[in-house]
Amino acid sequence: MKIAVDAMGGDHAPRHPVAGALLAAKELDVEVVLVGREDAIRRELERHRSAADLEIVDAGEVVAMDESPATALRRKRDSSIHVAAELVRDGEVAGLVSAGNTGAVMVTAKLLIGTIAGVDRPALAVVMTTTAGHCVLLDVGANVDPKSHQLVQFAVMGDQFARQILDVEDPRIGLLSIGEEAGKGTELIRAAHDALRGSRLRFLGNVESQDIFDGSADVVVCDGFTGNVVLKTSEAVVNAVIGLLKEELSRTWLSKLGARLSRGAFRRYRKRVDYAEFGGAPLLGVRGLTVICHGRSSPRAIKNGIRVAREYLGQRVNEAIERALEEIRVTAGDGTGDPGSRR
Amino acid sequence: MKIAVDAMGGDHAPRHPVAGALLAAKELDVEVVLVGREDAIRRELERHRSAADLEIVDAGEVVAMDESPATALRRKRDSSIHVAAELVRDGEVAGLVSAGNTGAVMVTAKLLIGTIAGVDRPALAVVMTTTAGHCVLLDVGANVDPKSHQLVQFAVMGDQFARQILDVEDPRIGLLSIGEEAGKGTELIRAAHDALRGSRLRFLGNVESQDIFDGSADVVVCDGFTGNVVLKTSEAVVNAVIGLLKEELSRTWLSKLGARLSRGAFRRYRKRVDYAEFGGAPLLGVRGLTVICHGRSSPRAIKNGIRVAREYLGQRVNEAIERALEEIRVTAGDGTGDPGSRR
Repeated sequence: MKIAVDAMGGDHAPRHPVAGALLAAKELDVEVVLVGREDAIRRELERHRSAADLEIVDAGEVVAMDESPATALRRKRDSSIHVAAELVRDGEVAGLVSAGNTGAVMVTAKLLIGTIAGVDRPALAVVMTTTAGHCVLLDVGANVDPKSHQLVQFAVMGDQFARQILDVEDPRIGLLSIGEEAGKGTELIRAAHDALRGSRLRFLGNVESQDIFDGSADVVVCDGFTGNVVLKTSEAVVNAVIGLLKEELSRTWLSKLGARLSRGAFRRYRKRVDYAEFGGAPLLGVRGLTVICHGRSSPRAIKNGIRVAREYLGQRVNEAIERALEEIRVTAGDGTGDPGSRR
Repeated sequence: MKIAVDAMGGDHAPRHPVAGALLAAKELDVEVVLVGREDAIRRELERHRSAADLEIVDAGEVVAMDESPATALRRKRDSSIHVAAELVRDGEVAGLVSAGNTGAVMVTAKLLIGTIAGVDRPALAVVMTTTAGHCVLLDVGANVDPKSHQLVQFAVMGDQFARQILDVEDPRIGLLSIGEEAGKGTELIRAAHDALRGSRLRFLGNVESQDIFDGSADVVVCDGFTGNVVLKTSEAVVNAVIGLLKEELSRTWLSKLGARLSRGAFRRYRKRVDYAEFGGAPLLGVRGLTVICHGRSSPRAIKNGIRVAREYLGQRVNEAIERALEEIRVTAGDGTGDPGSRR
């Protein structure tokens, strides 16, 4: 199986993407295609020995990390993101991994590659580390203003992702709101609640942020604005907690000594909650699979992104999603004709 | 100045509210009126010595913590929340502090007491602990679906609160979104962005969650759904981080020893981020002031809630808010007539 890696994407491009691609080619059963400026990629490859096998597809332009996604899509048709997405569209590769401009990757993948059957809009999913394991949160930024039936599609995609990639047998699906009662939340939440209640999913009802982090739910569904805020809040709070703890730990010699002795624990903790290390955020619902890695991705994070794409594509998760969406439609068709509505 | 305390509100009522009221009466320049079941309050007061001075107003019913706010408002007219709000409405007391059912307190205060001039809807504000001090976040749950001009009103209220209560000279106001560019976010955010840009506030533009916690903004404005999610996410993440850290710290004898030595630092940290200890969340925009404390509030948290109400009312913050809103209206009237729109 061939997977394209955006060699020019991320804060440490092309160094980390190329190093990550080499790791993946060595450790995983996958062929990696590096997309980007050929000369820059070759220079990086020369730094490694095992450079021989990687295919390179030249792309002359680079989308900057802070560039407008719409402008990038329109004007930079020879960017590494654009060319990599074309490779997926044309069936040259099965999927795409990028640590580049998240908005540009999302927009380009959505418009160039297109969605699978039954999916109106793709959703960006992240796997959060919880005290009990993992929780898939989606959408975290692909759609700021989805309709309720699209939230049901997100739930179906999250359900299949949890089954196939996280090996959860019968995923518990929650709808993020600000109170557990069915009537709580916005109009969108109330409509989605009813639709999910009538679906075949194992729907927990409304959940709150607590349930994302304490292992009460395997999949939590929300609109992309809310999900993005949750993701960024969790990153910000982790940083603030660690920052404040460090300040307090350095206040007395006793606590300084204590902190020194428990350094290993802090390191293990850091590793456990390092979201980037899971392997990036899959953009679910787009044909093939596009995995978006953190801009600061290490080579290992890039490799893990390729691993997730490899597993996802190998296990034909898109086909499973299409079947599940088809079933919901058939079932709902008996009643109201509204996908996922209460039967 | 008289302030009513809901003696029946919270997980530890009437014990903690009564104890908190006694602390406030002793330490602050304030008269406290305890509202609730007189017999239960008297029993609590007997446990303390300095019981003599507190006034009691009897209220026979209690709103449960999980009761529907609308039902409570309609059916329990003799509840401690209802009676306390009537005291504010009738001018018997200047403000009200409750650790009871948040939704019920909000709805009752809003409908019974009413809003100040220029404010359509009240906003619940919380003061977040940041690595650099404090940040006022509002709304965190009073309105899930506000209009953009109401977000401008929230900004004005947050601005005055930061000036008068947190002593910030010229508060930096941010609008919570999922990207700093003006075009980012929902339709609501884009409209509010334009309106705030045209106001006299020191508007930073769009900010992200990071800015709440790292001290980049003094006031962050959002709709009540998003704000509530941020608040609950931050609580959940703090719990998850501490839980995971504890797990890692107990893994080896070395880190166990380290953790023992640095216990004081963890305790100091806990105290610093204990949001409840700031003194509850003020419901801004309602006449007088209603402060909503955490359901788990300690006596000290209740006392701090009374302290915030005392300061707020003593410094006539409502009057300052009314003047500031009046100014925005006058200014905007010269141009488009739309409050706070771009001039």
